[in-house]
Amino acid sequence: MNLTPEDITRFLIAISVMLFAAKVFGELMRLIKQPSVVGEILAGIILGPTVFGTIAPDMFNAIFTNSKSTDIAIDGITNLAVIMLLLVSGLEVNLSLVFKQGKTALYTSVIGMVFPFAIGFLAAYFFPEFLGIKDPSLTLIFALFVGTALSITALPVVARTLMDLNIFKTQIGFLIIASAMFNDLIGWLVFSFILGMLGQSGHGFDISIIVTSTLVFIAFMLIIGRKIFNRIIPFIQNKTTYPGGILNFIFILGFLGAAFTEYIGIHAIFGAFIVGIAIGDSAHLKEQTREMVQQFVTNIFAPLFFVSIGLRVNFITSFDFMIVLIFVVLAFAGKVIGCGLGAYWGGMKKDEALAIGFGMNSRGAMEIVLGILALQAGLIHERVFVALVIMALVTSLSSAPFMSYFIKRFKNSIDINSLLRPDLVFFTNSDSKESVIEELIRKLSERYKLDYTYIKSEVMKRESIISTGLGNHLALPHAKIKISEVHFAIAVSKEGINFESLDEKPAKIIILLLTPFDHPELQLRLISEISKKFKDEESVKELIESGDINNFITNFKAL
Amino acid sequence: MNLTPEDITRFLIAISVMLFAAKVFGELMRLIKQPSVVGEILAGIILGPTVFGTIAPDMFNAIFTNSKSTDIAIDGITNLAVIMLLLVSGLEVNLSLVFKQGKTALYTSVIGMVFPFAIGFLAAYFFPEFLGIKDPSLTLIFALFVGTALSITALPVVARTLMDLNIFKTQIGFLIIASAMFNDLIGWLVFSFILGMLGQSGHGFDISIIVTSTLVFIAFMLIIGRKIFNRIIPFIQNKTTYPGGILNFIFILGFLGAAFTEYIGIHAIFGAFIVGIAIGDSAHLKEQTREMVQQFVTNIFAPLFFVSIGLRVNFITSFDFMIVLIFVVLAFAGKVIGCGLGAYWGGMKKDEALAIGFGMNSRGAMEIVLGILALQAGLIHERVFVALVIMALVTSLSSAPFMSYFIKRFKNSIDINSLLRPDLVFFTNSDSKESVIEELIRKLSERYKLDYTYIKSEVMKRESIISTGLGNHLALPHAKIKISEVHFAIAVSKEGINFESLDEKPAKIIILLLTPFDHPELQLRLISEISKKFKDEESVKELIESGDINNFITNFKAL
Repeated sequence: MNLTPEDITRFLIAISVMLFAAKVFGELMRLIKQPSVVGEILAGIILGPTVFGTIAPDMFNAIFTNSKSTDIAIDGITNLAVIMLLLVSGLEVNLSLVFKQGKTALYTSVIGMVFPFAIGFLAAYFFPEFLGIKDPSLTLIFALFVGTALSITALPVVARTLMDLNIFKTQIGFLIIASAMFNDLIGWLVFSFILGMLGQSGHGFDISIIVTSTLVFIAFMLIIGRKIFNRIIPFIQNKTTYPGGILNFIFILGFLGAAFTEYIGIHAIFGAFIVGIAIGDSAHLKEQTREMVQQFVTNIFAPLFFVSIGLRVNFITSFDFMIVLIFVVLAFAGKVIGCGLGAYWGGMKKDEALAIGFGMNSRGAMEIVLGILALQAGLIHERVFVALVIMALVTSLSSAPFMSYFIKRFKNSIDINSLLRPDLVFFTNSDSKESVIEELIRKLSERYKLDYTYIKSEVMKRESIISTGLGNHLALPHAKIKISEVHFAIAVSKEGINFESLDEKPAKIIILLLTPFDHPELQLRLISEISKKFKDEESVKELIESGDINNFITNFKAL
Repeated sequence: MNLTPEDITRFLIAISVMLFAAKVFGELMRLIKQPSVVGEILAGIILGPTVFGTIAPDMFNAIFTNSKSTDIAIDGITNLAVIMLLLVSGLEVNLSLVFKQGKTALYTSVIGMVFPFAIGFLAAYFFPEFLGIKDPSLTLIFALFVGTALSITALPVVARTLMDLNIFKTQIGFLIIASAMFNDLIGWLVFSFILGMLGQSGHGFDISIIVTSTLVFIAFMLIIGRKIFNRIIPFIQNKTTYPGGILNFIFILGFLGAAFTEYIGIHAIFGAFIVGIAIGDSAHLKEQTREMVQQFVTNIFAPLFFVSIGLRVNFITSFDFMIVLIFVVLAFAGKVIGCGLGAYWGGMKKDEALAIGFGMNSRGAMEIVLGILALQAGLIHERVFVALVIMALVTSLSSAPFMSYFIKRFKNSIDINSLLRPDLVFFTNSDSKESVIEELIRKLSERYKLDYTYIKSEVMKRESIISTGLGNHLALPHAKIKISEVHFAIAVSKEGINFESLDEKPAKIIILLLTPFDHPELQLRLISEISKKFKDEESVKELIESGDINNFITNFKAL
């Protein structure tokens, strides 16, 4: 069976229009400092029956709905797209980072899942009609669905938000990312369980079989598969053409993992995600490869999936204010209270805990995929699907403003400029990360009579997790140590030193920040304050070009 | 209309299996120095009804033929794949290179098209039954089809073959590439004409309308579109996220161009190809972007298309020895004689002309696409399609061996080592391409009393076309000038100098080669001889590490 020329024309136009709208709205969102995925979903709502389909129904139908074959071809592509998206998300999960965060992350993610799940489940179980249940005989499954849909944090959105707020590499940033990763893993498991109950299973396996094979698959991939991949990857990179061989390897395994989980009855994207984690864990995988896959998928494929969400339903006619309100309120209450409490019990201060709660509140692709499946299975009305998408948009959009509000609250009175000591600012000739850090520690420990070895071990321990190159030529090595006051020193390198920044710019201003162990909140406060000074490229350029130390200090204070 | 979980499972397995087989056979072909596309086509024949479908029909049907929806989804992907492939081919066409080759290229490509077209057309018109015509009432169209199928050179295969033979950057290499590019452009025009006659047009436009709109489209894209893109590209690279914005731009325009040509009634890939040329011509397009698109398309998408060819028919039951033989003989006769004569009349020596003829003999994607369409339109039998694919494989595989045979024939007796003058080998401190070339010219012009300015202008004119960094640390600037003997000098740079080699290695050994204007064949012979010396990485490394000039000369002679 082949596509006719009309089908192909329509298919190509549909894809071009989807990509174009996604890019335009995605870039607009970035301009106003919002995650581009929000723009991509909005683009779909505008292209779909809600706006374009209402204004110009003939054109809309001609492009998007007139041909069954075109629909199937587009469905094939969007399925591949979301599978690739989860494969890439998996590549970015860092297992050791998750384990290193310990108790706080565990509390945050577990309570942050159980609580929203519980309130969602209870609300849907006892008041199903308020939440828009379609078939009252399925109340239990519906309640499980609502609980799950409320409890999964959107890892990619969270990561973007943290980067925008400049706290991706702080302790609070790590904690949120680690909790979100753990959350994702568990969320998928529950998700697979629900799908089994929804009868979406390809071969109608029993739930127990589905859950068992899922667990075996996860365990196999993350324990044995991970090690095997780690052995095979260097072989592939050496023996086949680069990067062709390794690109093929990643996608073939991702697709096979996806096919396997789809076959056993849970969604294909779960398999792709787990395979992504297992492959991404290999230290042999080159950064360039990761980058290439990521750029291609997030720019060409992921937008097709996000746009396709809005093409499914009319967001105006299926808009039900009460249901939207209930979902949004439950979502906020569940995550903010759940994660907030978890973080608080895990040892964070109150304001920090609230910042974490809002940080974990973003929702995204996963609840939407779950919603699409529930819609197809006849479990929910279009109204509920619309509420779910709006809930994802609202929680994602509000995450950054709320977080920065609470972060500001717990960092009010410290003035970084008043702490600056002119004798601790100097030009350096060090040409490596380690030597400049040593130089900084030497200066500080001489000045304040501190233990050089102890400080160095703490600072390097922190560096070993993720390098502190924050971008825009700033590096900010730091540690919490047993002192009573904040100390910091600044080294200026004309040549620049590689600190593995995300923007790949060499660090030219390296600030060593030591904060009191007993006031853990000070660290985040100061890191965020300093990195805020380095947002404007022009002024940083001027700062770097300060001829002497006095000029430098004047320029630094003026930042 | 959505894909069921069974469809998705099958779709994912099909794609994974296709990619895997393509990669394995592609790499095997590369091991034996053949174009990987040949391996990818073979992989399809093995996966298809010919081998896998015969050995394990149940499994074959379960994966590839059981579901109409899966078929459509795969068809959608392979359509996108071939569109992307032609978009990338277009990006690699260098219009100014085509124009710079002048008369010889024009003769080679025009005669190299007209002649094979004529013998194919005449053979099919007068003996249609020998060539496997299906419907005798369509003899004229069938004859046009056969003529076209025989006359289009496969640009990507040719480029690979030239690189493998190390003559990509020689004059003969340029000439072949330029002719093949021109050939492609004209071939597509004829192709669009045939498609119109085949009634494949989406909206049943009249042929005159199809041809006119095609010509207008080409003229618009290559004259106005090209300039517009060149203006927009820097804007996109600066104002949107890199590389996301520009990747989107390339694909959206490529898909829209494809949709347009599909709509007017010629194949989608033509539009993608022309848009690719127009975009690729911009000097603002970053090399990294080109590379990213190319790697992704040639490694993930193109293989899906090439494998899908073999999935269509059974190459054993539809194998007809006579038809295959006729197609192969006509193909060889047409291109080798046509292009050979063209090159000869254009001023090349006989052996060079034959090398060019075999170089232009490779066939590939285009005749196969034409074949697929003719098959779908009921114009040809499966037997003819099989003959066409086999013809493409045989011509592509035989191209490299024949070329190197004829290149060897016309470069027999020169011994490069005996021409080496120890006083013209020296270590250099130059750190730029231009300064090392100047240094080399100075040495040569002093030694042989030559005109410095004249030589420099000739050498730099040559460099301006494409830099002579040949890879593996060798750069080989050269020119044909009015001298009676071959002269060359060697500069050795410990630091390495950027000569824009394909392998991105800095040039450490720079050889300036001047050959007599009256013996143009000497240049190619010597370039090929010298570059052959630089094939083995280990010995080149040893050569570079020669401590002094005497050691260097000994090591050089031993290469």
